[in-house]
Amino acid sequence: MNCYTDGKPILIKALENGVSIIGLTRGESTKFHHIEKMDKGDVLLVQFTEFTAAIKIKGNAEILSSGGDIVSGD
Amino acid sequence: MNCYTDGKPILIKALENGVSIIGLTRGESTKFHHIEKMDKGDVLLVQFTEFTAAIKIKGNAEILSSGGDIVSGD
Amino acid sequence: MNCYTDGKPILIKALENGVSIIGLTRGESTKFHHIEKMDKGDVLLVQFTEFTAAIKIKGNAEILSSGGDIVSGD
Amino acid sequence: MNCYTDGKPILIKALENGVSIIGLTRGESTKFHHIEKMDKGDVLLVQFTEFTAAIKIKGNAEILSSGGDIVSGD
Amino acid sequence: MNCYTDGKPILIKALENGVSIIGLTRGESTKFHHIEKMDKGDVLLVQFTEFTAAIKIKGNAEILSSGGDIVSGD
Amino acid sequence: MNCYTDGKPILIKALENGVSIIGLTRGESTKFHHIEKMDKGDVLLVQFTEFTAAIKIKGNAEILSSGGDIVSGD
Amino acid sequence: MNCYTDGKPILIKALENGVSIIGLTRGESTKFHHIEKMDKGDVLLVQFTEFTAAIKIKGNAEILSSGGDIVSGD
Amino acid sequence: MNCYTDGKPILIKALENGVSIIGLTRGESTKFHHIEKMDKGDVLLVQFTEFTAAIKIKGNAEILSSGGDIVSGD
Amino acid sequence: MNCYTDGKPILIKALENGVSIIGLTRGESTKFHHIEKMDKGDVLLVQFTEFTAAIKIKGNAEILSSGGDIVSGD
Amino acid sequence: MNCYTDGKPILIKALENGVSIIGLTRGESTKFHHIEKMDKGDVLLVQFTEFTAAIKIKGNAEILSSGGDIVSGD
Amino acid sequence: MNCYTDGKPILIKALENGVSIIGLTRGESTKFHHIEKMDKGDVLLVQFTEFTAAIKIKGNAEILSSGGDIVSGD
Amino acid sequence: MNCYTDGKPILIKALENGVSIIGLTRGESTKFHHIEKMDKGDVLLVQFTEFTAAIKIKGNAEILSSGGDIVSGD
Repeated sequence: MNCYTDGKPILIKALENGVSIIGLTRGESTKFHHIEKMDKGDVLLVQFTEFTAAIKIKGNAEILSSGGDIVSGD
Repeated sequence: MNCYTDGKPILIKALENGVSIIGLTRGESTKFHHIEKMDKGDVLLVQFTEFTAAIKIKGNAEILSSGGDIVSGD
Repeated sequence: MNCYTDGKPILIKALENGVSIIGLTRGESTKFHHIEKMDKGDVLLVQFTEFTAAIKIKGNAEILSSGGDIVSGD
Repeated sequence: MNCYTDGKPILIKALENGVSIIGLTRGESTKFHHIEKMDKGDVLLVQFTEFTAAIKIKGNAEILSSGGDIVSGD
Repeated sequence: MNCYTDGKPILIKALENGVSIIGLTRGESTKFHHIEKMDKGDVLLVQFTEFTAAIKIKGNAEILSSGGDIVSGD
Repeated sequence: MNCYTDGKPILIKALENGVSIIGLTRGESTKFHHIEKMDKGDVLLVQFTEFTAAIKIKGNAEILSSGGDIVSGD
Repeated sequence: MNCYTDGKPILIKALENGVSIIGLTRGESTKFHHIEKMDKGDVLLVQFTEFTAAIKIKGNAEILSSGGDIVSGD
Repeated sequence: MNCYTDGKPILIKALENGVSIIGLTRGESTKFHHIEKMDKGDVLLVQFTEFTAAIKIKGNAEILSSGGDIVSGD
Repeated sequence: MNCYTDGKPILIKALENGVSIIGLTRGESTKFHHIEKMDKGDVLLVQFTEFTAAIKIKGNAEILSSGGDIVSGD
Repeated sequence: MNCYTDGKPILIKALENGVSIIGLTRGESTKFHHIEKMDKGDVLLVQFTEFTAAIKIKGNAEILSSGGDIVSGD
Repeated sequence: MNCYTDGKPILIKALENGVSIIGLTRGESTKFHHIEKMDKGDVLLVQFTEFTAAIKIKGNAEILSSGGDIVSGD
Repeated sequence: MNCYTDGKPILIKALENGVSIIGLTRGESTKFHHIEKMDKGDVLLVQFTEFTAAIKIKGNAEILSSGGDIVSGD
């Protein structure tokens, strides 16, 4: 069974151009496997998967999730 | 069992013409697999699937989900 | 097991003639597979299925769902 | 297991003669498979099944469901 | 597994003589399979089954269910 | 697994002599399979079973259930 | 699996001597299979089982259950 | 799986000497299989088991359970 | 599966020296299988097991459980 | 499946030197299998396991658990 | 199935240098298997595992968990 | 089934440059297997996995989780 997620999406809204959403691999070694570049106003809905166990956000963004809400960036 | 979703739809309403809903693939590489163009007022109900683990929204839209509600666009 | 839905119906009420409810396919490619035309006042109760992972609504309609409530159209 | 329904009935009360409750098929093609005609005051309790994934209501009726309550018709 | 119901009974009380509770079949075709006639004051507790996916009530009756409460008849 | 019941008993208290609790069969045909006669003040705790999918109550009785509470009789 | 009960006991307290707790069989025919006589003040904790799908209480008793609370007797 | 209990203990406190806690058998015939004598102030924590489907309490005792709380005895 | 307990500990605090916590066997016959003597102030956290279906407490003790809280002893 | 615990830790804080946390064995005989000595201020997080079905605490300690909170010692 | 935890992390924040987080083994014998030294301000998120059934904290730390919150140290 | 997580992400926001998020291995020995360096304002969403059973945070960061919220650093 696949239950890496409770099925509720993580929402990320870029509040400036050039926000990076970086997927890190699940598994014995942790590596970048995808970088999604976002423009100001873009929204990304994501979830943890069998390939992604960590997500890094660089730049000013609003983040909503079932684990809590936070704003990234200075 | 399918745990990609809690079964509650994600609702996206375009607030302007030309809003793009972009499905990104689940799996070892993350690629665009579908772009849905929306006119002003259109509503799309979507869910994560065995093929889609991320959804990017470009343009001004209202988004309702079990993970939180947000407005995309400037 | 089939759990694409939490079993709660999505309700769509057409607020004008000619509202279109468009079913999009689940799977590797996303295509239209059904268009349901609605007259003013008609109500459609729908759910996600093994064939339908997205539903597009064009025209003025009231939408109630376990993911949230919204009105489509201008 | 059956996940087409959360087991809570959908209730439809006809508020005029000639209300139509139309069952649409689940599956690769979506077709009418049953039309139930209702007289004023009749109540129908229904659920989604392995054969029915959408229900269309034409005419003035009160609809109660675990997804929300609505009145069809003008 | 049989989960056509959440296990909570549907209660129907006839408010006049001659109320009809009509069971409609589950399956590819939808047909009447049982009509239960009720006298004023009678109460029927029912549930959806592997044979019954819809229940029609004709005449003045009070209906209580986990999907909502309604009164049939004019 | 047994999903005919949520495990909560249905309670029926006769408010007069001669109240009838009538069990109707589950299955392709619906027939009486048991009539329980109750004297005033008697209480019956019942549940739906693999043999009983409907229960009819004739006479003045108080009914408590997880689907709602009602009084039968005029 | 055995889930005739939600695991919460039914409590019955005799408020007079000679209260009868009568177990009725589950199955195609419904018959008495046990009568428990209670003296005033006695408490019985019971549950539905694979053999008992109905319990009849004759005489003045206080009944607590997850389906509701009631007093039997006149 | 074990569904005889919701895992919450039934607590019985003897409020006088000589309180009897009587276990009755589960199964086709219902018989005493154990009598536990309690002195004033003793507390017994019990649960329904694969052998015990009813528990009778004679004498003055305080009973706490997930089905409700009651005091036995006159 | 082992679900004799909801996983929440039963807490027993001795309020005097010599409190006895007596484990009674699960099974066809009910016998003492362990006596734990407690000094004043000692706390015991216990649960029902595949060997223990009843626990008797003699002496003055405070008892906390998911079934309710009680003080044993006079 | 493991049902010895609801997964919530039991927290024990020693309020004096020399508090003893004593693990008692699950199984047909109940014996000490581990004694953990704690200094003042130490905190131990523990859970029931396939080897431990009872935990005895001697000395002055604060105990937090999903079954309730208590202070051991005089 | 692995359910030693409810999936909610235990959070430990060192309030001084030299706080020790000591993992104790699950199994027939209970032994230290890891000591994690923490500097002031460090936070550790941990969970019970198939190897760790107890965690001892020495030194001044703030502990948050689904079983309760406590501060270790004098 | 995967019970390492309840599916809710742990969110960590660096409040200064050089915050370290250190993954420690699950298993018989506990070792560092990954260090993620974060700049001020970066947000990391993480979960426990089959490889990671502890996460250490060094430096000033805001941490949100279903087990509680805390700020690391002095």
